[in-house]
Amino acid sequence: MQHFQFYNPVKILFGAGQIANIASQIPQGSKVMMTYGGGSIKQNGVYKQVVKALSGFEFVEFSGIEANPRYETLMKAVEMVKRENVDFLLAVGGGSVIDGTKFIALATYFEGEDAYTICTQGVKVQKAVPMGAVLTLPATGSEMNNGGVISRESTHEKFAFSGGRHTFPCFSVLDPTVTLTLPKRQRINGVVDAFIHVTEQYLTYPVQADIQDRFSEGILHVLVDNGMKYIDNEEDMDAAANVMWACSMALNGLIAAGVPQDWATHRIGHEITAIAGLDHAQTLALVWPGLHRVMAESKREKLLQFGRRIWGVDTVEEAIARTEDFFRKIGEGTRFSDYPQVENPQAVIDEICRRFETRGTLLGEHADIDYIKTREILQGRL
Amino acid sequence: MQHFQFYNPVKILFGAGQIANIASQIPQGSKVMMTYGGGSIKQNGVYKQVVKALSGFEFVEFSGIEANPRYETLMKAVEMVKRENVDFLLAVGGGSVIDGTKFIALATYFEGEDAYTICTQGVKVQKAVPMGAVLTLPATGSEMNNGGVISRESTHEKFAFSGGRHTFPCFSVLDPTVTLTLPKRQRINGVVDAFIHVTEQYLTYPVQADIQDRFSEGILHVLVDNGMKYIDNEEDMDAAANVMWACSMALNGLIAAGVPQDWATHRIGHEITAIAGLDHAQTLALVWPGLHRVMAESKREKLLQFGRRIWGVDTVEEAIARTEDFFRKIGEGTRFSDYPQVENPQAVIDEICRRFETRGTLLGEHADIDYIKTREILQGRL
Repeated sequence: MQHFQFYNPVKILFGAGQIANIASQIPQGSKVMMTYGGGSIKQNGVYKQVVKALSGFEFVEFSGIEANPRYETLMKAVEMVKRENVDFLLAVGGGSVIDGTKFIALATYFEGEDAYTICTQGVKVQKAVPMGAVLTLPATGSEMNNGGVISRESTHEKFAFSGGRHTFPCFSVLDPTVTLTLPKRQRINGVVDAFIHVTEQYLTYPVQADIQDRFSEGILHVLVDNGMKYIDNEEDMDAAANVMWACSMALNGLIAAGVPQDWATHRIGHEITAIAGLDHAQTLALVWPGLHRVMAESKREKLLQFGRRIWGVDTVEEAIARTEDFFRKIGEGTRFSDYPQVENPQAVIDEICRRFETRGTLLGEHADIDYIKTREILQGRL
Repeated sequence: MQHFQFYNPVKILFGAGQIANIASQIPQGSKVMMTYGGGSIKQNGVYKQVVKALSGFEFVEFSGIEANPRYETLMKAVEMVKRENVDFLLAVGGGSVIDGTKFIALATYFEGEDAYTICTQGVKVQKAVPMGAVLTLPATGSEMNNGGVISRESTHEKFAFSGGRHTFPCFSVLDPTVTLTLPKRQRINGVVDAFIHVTEQYLTYPVQADIQDRFSEGILHVLVDNGMKYIDNEEDMDAAANVMWACSMALNGLIAAGVPQDWATHRIGHEITAIAGLDHAQTLALVWPGLHRVMAESKREKLLQFGRRIWGVDTVEEAIARTEDFFRKIGEGTRFSDYPQVENPQAVIDEICRRFETRGTLLGEHADIDYIKTREILQGRL
């Protein structure tokens, strides 16, 4: 096991009805800004529950944070935070809203020309507006970590950032009943997203980190055992609760501690979203089989362990095929041809490879996935 | 899954040499009190490393915290904290030193006649001296939680307490190389202690908490896979690191979240330690097989799952027998007859049952283990 630091101070309030308890988690006298997306929380009753729970607090609202939250939108929220003297942010939504709210929290204290350098250059901000979250869509794990991913419309770019100890939510509410009204596509995406978060931290090379391996495998088992039930049966609250907690565990630092990490599937996927507009999880399921076939040799030992312990198979190819089957069975596409709305996939591939070549991008746990390997990975996904 | 709150803000510094990094974790200008036990840290080099890391801080020392730390000893430390105006506690030791230091942290701010009521009556103290820990003995998990167990010499009693959010260590250093000089008995006890911490939270009845089950099983696998190597081969740093991290994970709140808990093995074991002086883990391994046989019916489903997933066996009795075999194989006794120093085990059993009858004690996840069932459990362990 490699040496590591682990720190995760997010307080989790898990279960039906927990939204009612948020008032006790927010400092008294705070002026709160509730941030949310397109308004689904007004249809599913979450908005009403949050407003009720916030009685006693002065609050303002900032809505319209989109999927793949945009820098341009978030900077409008930053203006509002300053104008309204907001001192607590409450993100009510999925990963995009929570990611965006972390960026708002940091950018409020950013001093400089262009706050997007927090993403592109990893500029560190030493303070952030404190925030909490009410999760409405299990997927990204943002509710229990300090990172986020922000897109910039003007340049069609998408970059990740972390605010260190400043952007952990003080608390996150995980109420599985909020999933009752989720569209099927978002359920599918959530399961795939969490699954691939785990493999990014697990399918590298062995470092004898047994707890991390067992926990990773545990999360994968939970997603395989509950995924289909969660997607097909909206009323199965056990499955929803298990998927929800699995998504948080997949990216809260625990299985990352002391092990090498990959994240190439994500980095390539981000480019596909930025250029072609596919959902984040759709891009992951598309890239995953190609990446693991092309990188099979250097990932061999962990792929064999994964195959044996998760799928009960003995070869690398079976392990990859079973995983792709799983994605397809729960309803996610795994090839460009599954997405006819992408009119010219070859042009998408060419643009990604051009960007990686220009930037000198090197991905993966060995930093050996360059634009040439990326092309090999993606050409196999047409 | 039951609803729950989860919160664990302990920062973990894991790996060889991490002691050198503690200075950056302690508020500048703090007056530190280092607490430790019998002085083994002076033989194994930990004391020197800590003193070096604390250069720049004014500090005092309080030594002599014993295994099963005593109220009487700890109150002397409280006097020293007050007299010396200490504002940060640094526990350097195993579970006893860390538990004891949590009690010192709380008792410093206790206002009342008898600080032991923090244990016996669960009196809540709303403030504590902040503390950090340097772990020297993987076992109890105290380095990553807010609880402790304190004995009172004058009454031969042993009780648990928790200080809520006030007694989480701010940080804990987990350096597996500190185990190099541990006596074999303490290694054995550590593995058994962690194993049974897990089963107290896992072997109850199913509530479809799949993450918690998989993580519990993961920790048990890690202890089974690494336990023997850790105990028999002092130089196996991979095994030591895995056991060390497993011990922290076994009792940091993660596998407890949203599930029923038992703790009867611990409660009965505490009495045996208080009356007969056996090591904590020795008492657990002694009670465990008896308790799980007597309670087999109400634990049936989880015992079968445990048997299948951990030992690859199909019956409750095999699951229990394999577990007892494991304890014996790594060198822990599982019967009173393994401890000839306990001259009159029957008297110990009688005294425990007398206490439970007097107190009206009801243990276990269904609160149905009374003094009569306790007798049945213990009579089978002679």
